[in-house]
Amino acid sequence: MTSVFIVYLDKELQAKLRFIPDLRDNFLLPHYICPMQKPSNPKGTRDFGPAELRKRNHILNTIRSVFENFGFQPIETPAFENLSTLTGKYGEEGDKLLFRILNSGELVKSVKTEHIEKEDNIAFIQSISKKGLRYDLTVPFARYVVQHSNEVVFPFRRYQIQQVWRADRPGKGRFQEFTQCDADIIGSKSMVNEADLVLIYEAVFKKLGLSNAILKINHRKFLEALVQELNLNFEVTQFTSTLDKLDKIGEAALKEEFLKLGVTEHAIDQLFTIITEEKISLQFLDKVEQAFNHNPLAVQACTELREVVQFAQLENLDLDVRLDLSLARGLDYYTGCIFESVVPDSGIGSISGGGRYDDLTGVFGLKDVSGVGISFGIDRIYEVMANLNLFDDHAPSDTILLCHFDEESRNYQYGIAKTLRSKGMAAFIFPDTKKIAKQLDYANKRNVRFVLIAGGSEIESESVTVKDMISGSNTEVKIGNLSSYLIDQGAKVN
Amino acid sequence: MTSVFIVYLDKELQAKLRFIPDLRDNFLLPHYICPMQKPSNPKGTRDFGPAELRKRNHILNTIRSVFENFGFQPIETPAFENLSTLTGKYGEEGDKLLFRILNSGELVKSVKTEHIEKEDNIAFIQSISKKGLRYDLTVPFARYVVQHSNEVVFPFRRYQIQQVWRADRPGKGRFQEFTQCDADIIGSKSMVNEADLVLIYEAVFKKLGLSNAILKINHRKFLEALVQELNLNFEVTQFTSTLDKLDKIGEAALKEEFLKLGVTEHAIDQLFTIITEEKISLQFLDKVEQAFNHNPLAVQACTELREVVQFAQLENLDLDVRLDLSLARGLDYYTGCIFESVVPDSGIGSISGGGRYDDLTGVFGLKDVSGVGISFGIDRIYEVMANLNLFDDHAPSDTILLCHFDEESRNYQYGIAKTLRSKGMAAFIFPDTKKIAKQLDYANKRNVRFVLIAGGSEIESESVTVKDMISGSNTEVKIGNLSSYLIDQGAKVN
Repeated sequence: MTSVFIVYLDKELQAKLRFIPDLRDNFLLPHYICPMQKPSNPKGTRDFGPAELRKRNHILNTIRSVFENFGFQPIETPAFENLSTLTGKYGEEGDKLLFRILNSGELVKSVKTEHIEKEDNIAFIQSISKKGLRYDLTVPFARYVVQHSNEVVFPFRRYQIQQVWRADRPGKGRFQEFTQCDADIIGSKSMVNEADLVLIYEAVFKKLGLSNAILKINHRKFLEALVQELNLNFEVTQFTSTLDKLDKIGEAALKEEFLKLGVTEHAIDQLFTIITEEKISLQFLDKVEQAFNHNPLAVQACTELREVVQFAQLENLDLDVRLDLSLARGLDYYTGCIFESVVPDSGIGSISGGGRYDDLTGVFGLKDVSGVGISFGIDRIYEVMANLNLFDDHAPSDTILLCHFDEESRNYQYGIAKTLRSKGMAAFIFPDTKKIAKQLDYANKRNVRFVLIAGGSEIESESVTVKDMISGSNTEVKIGNLSSYLIDQGAKVN
Repeated sequence: MTSVFIVYLDKELQAKLRFIPDLRDNFLLPHYICPMQKPSNPKGTRDFGPAELRKRNHILNTIRSVFENFGFQPIETPAFENLSTLTGKYGEEGDKLLFRILNSGELVKSVKTEHIEKEDNIAFIQSISKKGLRYDLTVPFARYVVQHSNEVVFPFRRYQIQQVWRADRPGKGRFQEFTQCDADIIGSKSMVNEADLVLIYEAVFKKLGLSNAILKINHRKFLEALVQELNLNFEVTQFTSTLDKLDKIGEAALKEEFLKLGVTEHAIDQLFTIITEEKISLQFLDKVEQAFNHNPLAVQACTELREVVQFAQLENLDLDVRLDLSLARGLDYYTGCIFESVVPDSGIGSISGGGRYDDLTGVFGLKDVSGVGISFGIDRIYEVMANLNLFDDHAPSDTILLCHFDEESRNYQYGIAKTLRSKGMAAFIFPDTKKIAKQLDYANKRNVRFVLIAGGSEIESESVTVKDMISGSNTEVKIGNLSSYLIDQGAKVN
C-alpha cells in the first residue's frame, strides 16, 4: 500500500495543507502531514547534552576544587537583580546589553505610552521593567558584600560559579548565556593575595593539561608612570585604551595612532623600548625600574611585583609567567596588578583575566574595600581544550549495563544491579525485554564499557558474563567475585 | 570633639539633605550623611552565603550522586526559552506566572501601543517580548528531546538540576527562583523503571538521614476505575481534583462536595471504604483488586504495581512505601504510577513527586514518547532538614589557616601552605601581618578548626604549632610530620 507523506516549507503552507482534499477518504491513500517545525532553543543559547557536560563539568569541577584548595568559599546570587543595582555599572554599551524582565501581572498595565510617542525608549523600558538578568558576577558580588557586610568575614575569599546573560548579537563563539568562574579576595591589600592567585592559575592549568598556558602580568602604576615619563598630556584611560590595540593592529599602526594623538616620535620610540614582554624575575624587574628612570609610580609597581615573585617563587614555577608592560585590560577599573592568560596556538584569545581594584563596593555606599580577583571563561577554556584535543572524547561511560533474556534473567540481573550500586558502581538494567543485539547496540550508543549478560546457564552457575565492549572479551564471573573483578578491570567506584 | 551623623528615611529626604547648611564649615562640626539605602536582592529571591551553600550543596550532591549511581546522565538547557515553547504548557495560571524577557535593542521599538489602548495585555506583551525564563524542567526537557531526537539514545535516563523562575507573589517559603532536581526515563514502558525510581527515593532519603520519609504511590487507573465503579457521571479530572482536597479539607467536607456534585451517599461510602492508605505489599494489592470488584482498570494497575513491588522488593525496603488510593497529583498529566513523598512532623508538605506520563513530547510533534520521572524540591528538603536539625551547623571548615608574626614567618608559612595544598588539604595564610589575636579571631569567625602558628622558635626547630580551635590544644609538630599529623587529627584531604 502506498502512503503519501506531505512536507511543507513554512507555517503558511502548513496551514493551507489543511484544505487539500482528504487523501485517505477520497483515494484510500493514507497520508501524514509532517509535524510542525521542530522547536528550538533561542539563538545565542545552548543545550548541553551528556557528552558535552562531562567535559564542561570536568573544567568547572577542576577550577572549583582549586579554589577550595586555596580556602575560597562559595556564594550564589539570584539570576536577576533590581535594575537599580545593575544599570550604570557597565557603561552605556553594557546597559544596552542587559536583559530586562517585564513586570509581571497587573504591573504591566502601568506602562507609560507617552514615552513611546516621544521615542524615549529608556523611559519606556523603565516603566515596564524593574529587574534585569545578571550581566556579570562582580556587581552582584559587590551588592552582596554591602548588603551582608555584617556577616562577611574580611578578608573574604569568595568564589562564584554562575551563569551570566548579555543581549549581544549571537554569533560564532558569542553567546547570550555563558558561565563565569570568579575568585576574589577582598579586604586585604597584601601581595600574598596576588601570589595566591598566580598559584591558582598554575594549579588550574596544570590540572587541565594546559601546559602551554601563559600568564601575563602588568601593573596599573606602570601605565601611569608611562604617561608621566613620556610627558603625554592625556588621561591614563585614553592612553591605555589606545595601547590595548597593540595586539590587534600591530606596532606600526599603533605608532600612527599615537602620532595622531600628538605624541612625539621620540616619546613613541621610548614607549616601544619600554613596553617589552619577558619572563618575570627579580632581575627583570630591576631592569624595568631602570628603564622607567626610577619613576616613583614604577618603583611602587616593581616593589609590589617583587613581593609577588618572592611569595609565589615565580622563578621556579611550572607556569610561564611574563611581565607584559603593554597589558591594560579593563581600562580604569584596575588599580594594581593586572592578569591575563592565553594559550598560544589555540586559536582563542584570553581565557582568564583579573587584577586588583581599590573600590569594589563604593558605588553601593561602602568605601575602601580593596580586593583582587580573577575570572575564568569556561566557554573559551572549553574551546581551547577542544582545539588542542585535550578531551578524551572516547572515554567510556562509568555506567555498567545489565542485559537479560527473559523474565527470570531480568529478576536475576535486577538484584545484581542493586548489589553493584550499593558498592558504589553506577549500574542499571536494560528495562525492556528485547533481543540481546538490541541491548548491546544500546550499550554501544551510550558508550558503556562493561555489559553484564545473564541467561539460564549463568543463573544456574550463579555467575554473569562480563562483556568488555572495548576489548570485546567475554568472561564468566561468579557473583561473589563480581564487584572485585569489575574494579580490577577498571570500573569506577564512587 | 562632637560629630553629627545624619540619617534619613527615604530617597527624597536624602536629596534634601544636600541643602542643609554645611555643619563643618559653619559650626566646625564634622558630619556624615549616611550612605544611600543598602542595595538588596529582589523580593522572592535569595542570596546564598558559604554556610547555607555547604548545606544546600550537600543535598544537591547527594541527589546527583544517587542519580548517577543509577546510570542517569545530565543535560542542561538555557535559562530562557522562546515564548512559543513555554506558553500554553502550564495552563492559563502558569502563563501568567512566566517571567518574560523584554526584547532588547531596536526590537523594543516594534511595540504595539494599540494593544494597550484596547486593554489587550497579552497582545501587548507579545509585541515586546519573545522569550521567557524557564518555568520548570519538564517542558525544556521535552523540547530538548524533540530537537535532539537524532542524538538521544532511548531509553534515555536523564537528570537535570537547574533553577526555575515563577512570578509568584513572594511570601514565606515561596520564592520566585528555586532549584529543581528531575530524573526521568523516557522511551520505555517497563515497570523496571518505576522500581528504579522507588530505589532512588530510598537511597536519597537514607543518605540525607530522612529516616521517617514516606513514599506514597498510587496509579491513575485506580482513579479511573473509581469513576467507573461508583458510576460517577463526570470526568476523571474533575473527580481527582475534588479528591485531591482530602488532605486539606478532611473527609466530612469532602463528602459534602461530592454530594453537591450529585454523587450518591452510597457511592461516597463505597469511595471512602476503598481509598485507604496502607503499606504496599502483594497481599494488600490482592485486597485492593477485590475491593475494586476486579474492575479491569484496577486489575491493570494492580498488575503493574505488583511488578514494581517485586522488582524493588518493596516489602523488605528500608523505606516506608504506601499505596495511597486518594493520591492524585498533577491531575490529568500522569497516566500510570503516581509518586509523592513527605516527611511526617517536619512542618512541610510534599518534598518530591512524580509519575508516569504517556505523551511527554506530543505537544512538540513527537508522538508516543512514554516516560516516568520524579522531581525533588531542594528548598523544601532543606527546610525539612533544618526543622529536624539534620544539619551539622557547627561542622568546622575544612580549611587550614596559617598565621604569622612578621615577614620572616610569613615567608616560612607561605611555603608550608603550598605543601599542604599539594597534599590535597585546603590551606591559606592570613595575608596581612596583624596581631595573632586578630588572626585567631578571624579563624574563629570563619569556623576554622586547625590553625598553624609559626614564629622564631618554630622556624628554628623546623616546626609549627598546630592549634586545634575545638579542643584548644597546642601541639608543636615538625614540618616533616605535619601533613600526616593533620590527617590523623581529622583534616580533610581531597
